[in-house]
Amino acid sequence: MKLTLAYLGPIGTNSETAALAYSTWLSNNQQLTPTLCAYPSIAQAIQSVANGNIDQAVVPIENSIEGSVTVVLDTLWQSTNLQVYQELTLPIAHGLLSFGESLEQLKTVYSHPQGLAQCQKWLENFLPQVQLVPTKSTTEGIKYLEDDHTAAAISSPRAAEIYKVPILAADIKDSPDNCTRFWIVSSGINDKLREIEPIQGSHLALAFSLPRNAPGALVKALEIFACRNINLSKIESRPSKRSLGEYIFFIDLEGNSHDLQIRDALADLSACTEVLKVFGNYNLLPISESR
Amino acid sequence: MKLTLAYLGPIGTNSETAALAYSTWLSNNQQLTPTLCAYPSIAQAIQSVANGNIDQAVVPIENSIEGSVTVVLDTLWQSTNLQVYQELTLPIAHGLLSFGESLEQLKTVYSHPQGLAQCQKWLENFLPQVQLVPTKSTTEGIKYLEDDHTAAAISSPRAAEIYKVPILAADIKDSPDNCTRFWIVSSGINDKLREIEPIQGSHLALAFSLPRNAPGALVKALEIFACRNINLSKIESRPSKRSLGEYIFFIDLEGNSHDLQIRDALADLSACTEVLKVFGNYNLLPISESR
Repeated sequence: MKLTLAYLGPIGTNSETAALAYSTWLSNNQQLTPTLCAYPSIAQAIQSVANGNIDQAVVPIENSIEGSVTVVLDTLWQSTNLQVYQELTLPIAHGLLSFGESLEQLKTVYSHPQGLAQCQKWLENFLPQVQLVPTKSTTEGIKYLEDDHTAAAISSPRAAEIYKVPILAADIKDSPDNCTRFWIVSSGINDKLREIEPIQGSHLALAFSLPRNAPGALVKALEIFACRNINLSKIESRPSKRSLGEYIFFIDLEGNSHDLQIRDALADLSACTEVLKVFGNYNLLPISESR
Repeated sequence: MKLTLAYLGPIGTNSETAALAYSTWLSNNQQLTPTLCAYPSIAQAIQSVANGNIDQAVVPIENSIEGSVTVVLDTLWQSTNLQVYQELTLPIAHGLLSFGESLEQLKTVYSHPQGLAQCQKWLENFLPQVQLVPTKSTTEGIKYLEDDHTAAAISSPRAAEIYKVPILAADIKDSPDNCTRFWIVSSGINDKLREIEPIQGSHLALAFSLPRNAPGALVKALEIFACRNINLSKIESRPSKRSLGEYIFFIDLEGNSHDLQIRDALADLSACTEVLKVFGNYNLLPISESR
C-alpha cells in the first residue's frame, strides 16, 4: 500500500525534514513508506490534500518565535474535509549560507518570511544594511548564491550540505528555543488511512466562530473547558474575513473526542457557538534523532 | 510646532493614505501639520518612534482578511515606551497594475505579503500559473513594471495614478469588506504630544502574559472583564518567544483607563497576570473622504 505525502519543497526545507521524520515513524511503526511530493508553497501542499490529489500533507502550524502559520489555519477552517492526524515538533536551526567571504560584502539575504523573522535581531545587529528578500521556502534563495557572492540565504545546515554552500555564520536564530510544530493532515478517512487513524490521540484540534454581537461569548465558550478542568494547550484567533472585529478561535486541548467529558464539553460548545469544526484527535509523535 | 510622522513608504502605499488622513485630521482639529517620513518597512517605521528619532508612526495593526500585523504587536510588547494614541480604519482597494496588455501574458505578480494574501482567491482563479513575489510594500514592485510587461503589481488605484501605471484589472480583492486598522503610536509623552493625548479615548489597548503552568489562567483573566460587562473588541495571541505553548494575549476593550470600573479590572488583572502592559487609551478617528 502506497501513501502520498505533500510538503513544502524543495529538498532541504524544514518541512522536508518533518516529512522525512514522519516517513521514518510510519515505516517503523506501520510498515508504510510514503512517497514524498514537493510543492512550491505551503498553501499548495495543504490544498493538494483538500482536493484529494494527495493522501496526506505535513505542514508547519506554529513556530515558537513567529507564531501561527496563518495559511494553514485559514485553509483548515475553509475546507470541509481536512482532518488533523498527528503532530511533530522539530527544533529549527538557521545558518547564513553564502559563497561570500565576509559579512561585510553581503548586500542581500534571502529566506522564507518565517526564517527572516526568526533571525531579525541577529540581522539588525550584524547586517543592518542588507536588503531582506522574502522567498517561498528557506531553500528557494539558494539558487542565486553561486552567481552572486554578495547574497546569502538563511537556511538549515542540512540544506548547506545538500546544495554544497558554505555556512558563513552558524546558528543565527534569535532564540535558543526555536522550534516548529508540524501537523499531518488528510482529507477525511479513506481505506489507506483508516488503519493509521490515531483514535487514541492525546490532543484534539477544533475551531469555532461565535454569534455576532454577543459580548462575553468567548468567556462562556472557554468556561465550558475550564469548569471541566480540560487544559487548553493553544488558543489563537483569526479574522472571520466577513467583517473587522469578527474572529474564528482555534483551540487545541488535552483529551480525546471519545472521552465522555470531552464529548459533553463539545455538545455544550456546539450550543453556544455559531459554527464549530472539530479537526480530529492527534498524537504527539516522538522524533527520531537519526538523521 | 512641528510633529514628525513615520509610515511605510514610499508614496502610494496604504500606510501613506492613512498618514495623510491622520495629517488632515491633525491640521483640521489641532492646527498641526506633521512632516511625513517614509520608511522602507513597517518594522523600521515603528522602531523609529521607539528609538526617539520620530514623534509618531502610523502603522497597520490588523486587516479584516489577513489578521494582525504581527511585527507591530511584537514591537509594542518588547518596547518599554510605545503608546497607542489613535486608531483609524481605511477601506483597502487592490488593483492589478501592469504595462502588459492581457492577463495571459503575465508571469510575475509583486506585492506586500498582505496584498498577495488578500487577493489569493482571485489570483488562484485568474492567474494560477504566475510567480507571486512578496515585497516590502505594495508599491515596491512597481519599479520593475516598465521594463517587464509580463510583470504586474497588486497596489492601490492611488499608486496607479501616482506612478502612471495602467490598471489591468480593478478591484481584485477577495472580500468586499476589506479594511485595515491603523494605529498612531508614539514613545510616551513629550511636550509636543501632551496637548493631543486622547485622555478621553473610547478604547484601551493592553497585553499580558500569564504565569507558567497555570491551567485556566486565561479564563480567569477574561472573566475579570466579563463580570463587569466590559466588552472586548479584540483578542489575539502571540508566542512569548520563550517556549512553545506560552503566549502573550493582546486585548482591545471598550472603555478608558480613567474609568473607575476599568481601573478596578486592571488592578485585578495585574494580580493574576505575569506581566501586564497598558498601551494607552485611543479614539477611533473619523476618516475624511476628501482625497
